[in-house]
Amino acid sequence: DQQILDNMHLDKKYHSLGILGARTGAGPQIMAADTAVKATNTEVVDIELPRDTKGGGGHGSLIVFGGDDVSDVRQAVSIALEDVKRTFGDVYGTDAGHLEFQYTARASQAVHKAFGAPLGKAYGLVCGSPAAIGVVMADVAVKTAAVEVLSVASPAHGTSVSNEAMVHITGDSGAVRQAVISAREVGKVLLANLSGTEPKNDFPSYI
Amino acid sequence: DQQILDNMHLDKKYHSLGILGARTGAGPQIMAADTAVKATNTEVVDIELPRDTKGGGGHGSLIVFGGDDVSDVRQAVSIALEDVKRTFGDVYGTDAGHLEFQYTARASQAVHKAFGAPLGKAYGLVCGSPAAIGVVMADVAVKTAAVEVLSVASPAHGTSVSNEAMVHITGDSGAVRQAVISAREVGKVLLANLSGTEPKNDFPSYI
Amino acid sequence: DQQILDNMHLDKKYHSLGILGARTGAGPQIMAADTAVKATNTEVVDIELPRDTKGGGGHGSLIVFGGDDVSDVRQAVSIALEDVKRTFGDVYGTDAGHLEFQYTARASQAVHKAFGAPLGKAYGLVCGSPAAIGVVMADVAVKTAAVEVLSVASPAHGTSVSNEAMVHITGDSGAVRQAVISAREVGKVLLANLSGTEPKNDFPSYI
Repeated sequence: DQQILDNMHLDKKYHSLGILGARTGAGPQIMAADTAVKATNTEVVDIELPRDTKGGGGHGSLIVFGGDDVSDVRQAVSIALEDVKRTFGDVYGTDAGHLEFQYTARASQAVHKAFGAPLGKAYGLVCGSPAAIGVVMADVAVKTAAVEVLSVASPAHGTSVSNEAMVHITGDSGAVRQAVISAREVGKVLLANLSGTEPKNDFPSYI
Repeated sequence: DQQILDNMHLDKKYHSLGILGARTGAGPQIMAADTAVKATNTEVVDIELPRDTKGGGGHGSLIVFGGDDVSDVRQAVSIALEDVKRTFGDVYGTDAGHLEFQYTARASQAVHKAFGAPLGKAYGLVCGSPAAIGVVMADVAVKTAAVEVLSVASPAHGTSVSNEAMVHITGDSGAVRQAVISAREVGKVLLANLSGTEPKNDFPSYI
Repeated sequence: DQQILDNMHLDKKYHSLGILGARTGAGPQIMAADTAVKATNTEVVDIELPRDTKGGGGHGSLIVFGGDDVSDVRQAVSIALEDVKRTFGDVYGTDAGHLEFQYTARASQAVHKAFGAPLGKAYGLVCGSPAAIGVVMADVAVKTAAVEVLSVASPAHGTSVSNEAMVHITGDSGAVRQAVISAREVGKVLLANLSGTEPKNDFPSYI
């Protein structure tokens, strides 16, 4: 409805909108939306990050796709829903916190909009909760490989007061991937020590 | 105490204050406060919405009544506490999310202050968590009946980073009520599908 | 790494940083950090308060120590971690909410930075969740003894949309301590009534 459209805070007005939302997870949904906009004639017109995860320390998500054609938008949502199984592959949780890692060799419009990644360049995300683990991992990531920091987010800056710290990086694709992998190694040890249990991913690692 | 009063962010300074608060729920408490200000010589001087619900996707509430007389304020709190059993009647929950619907034929000062409803006119609230369900229901509500949108709230706009989307509507009382009922029908099906269980209300529906 | 430092929002650039973080608790960690900066050649350069507590109504914390020397910073973190067992002594919880009380006869840089307490003067914190209990306790605290209110925080002001209200007080050390103790007596009764169970602390009370 036009009244709803006018009262939402969308970047552009499209005829057709598709909506993707979750109680748990924002990075995985944004990466999956990136896959979807690459494959369809749509773009992401809104990304909002509630403070959620059902008692966890992170975000949920609300993502709105826009397109001129209903079938394009429907396809975008469908692709994103399917791709989430991949992009949850490097999310590791315990009762004490969680770790998230994302990587793409070529960022598209969703990742650009969400995190400021340069279009067509490699992008990596290193995120940890509680935030202290995220800060240490961010440091490891950037020390390991010659990458460029796009931004650092923490409870008071660039998150919805989540208990996470994260670094968004870009650069040469090999370096970005290596930085993410190194941070993951350290993060899993830190979270395991904090939790007394091994951090587990629900889907196969893709990085 | 005067020092506390001076350091709180109240609209008006009253001699007597009454306080209503909850871990779970904001809409029901605000609607109940509206009933209370209608029935007493008090007004609501502060409404704050923490991000709470004990791990759920919504808000808790802190509502402050002001009046010149202690007994008025006490009565307002008492009426509101009693009326909450009614205003929780159209809150439906599952482990995956929740739905909330409110309706009044005649909005008073609390609903005006909280949501911008015109005084004395009909007001309706359609709210869903996760936010994606709320957006779809908002669209249904406004398409169903000739109502006017006061505002749309979502995780990044008009909520305390909750995982909710909601529409605040006004207009002819019959149309507002019909819009809310139509959204509720759709919302219950969406949340049931998402959850694999039927959304349940803890008190009888009043709309 | 320098890139991480440049992208974090730290007050001062130090050669060495130490990080303290938690899913649950901010006041206890800030008070413990205050003990640590008193005892070492460090200062606190960042305090961030995520909305966390694993489904509870309060905050987690991210605290960054800075120093010119690695061993100083390491010692600060170590002292703070040890002192947290003391500063959790007056945190009382039930399923329905929690109470927190802090007191120091002599506030140092961490408490000054976090809550505006005058350096070297007595400081007291009275905090309750849900926020309604905190407001009542704040009033009791300030009525009981001749103390000065530094600020009142609530879901919409001075918290990360937590479901807490709190008062920060200073003044004569005996008066501050007495105000805190009086609020604690009232708060424990209120929370017990709300919960149907006795509020419990996990560590011995220190106030």
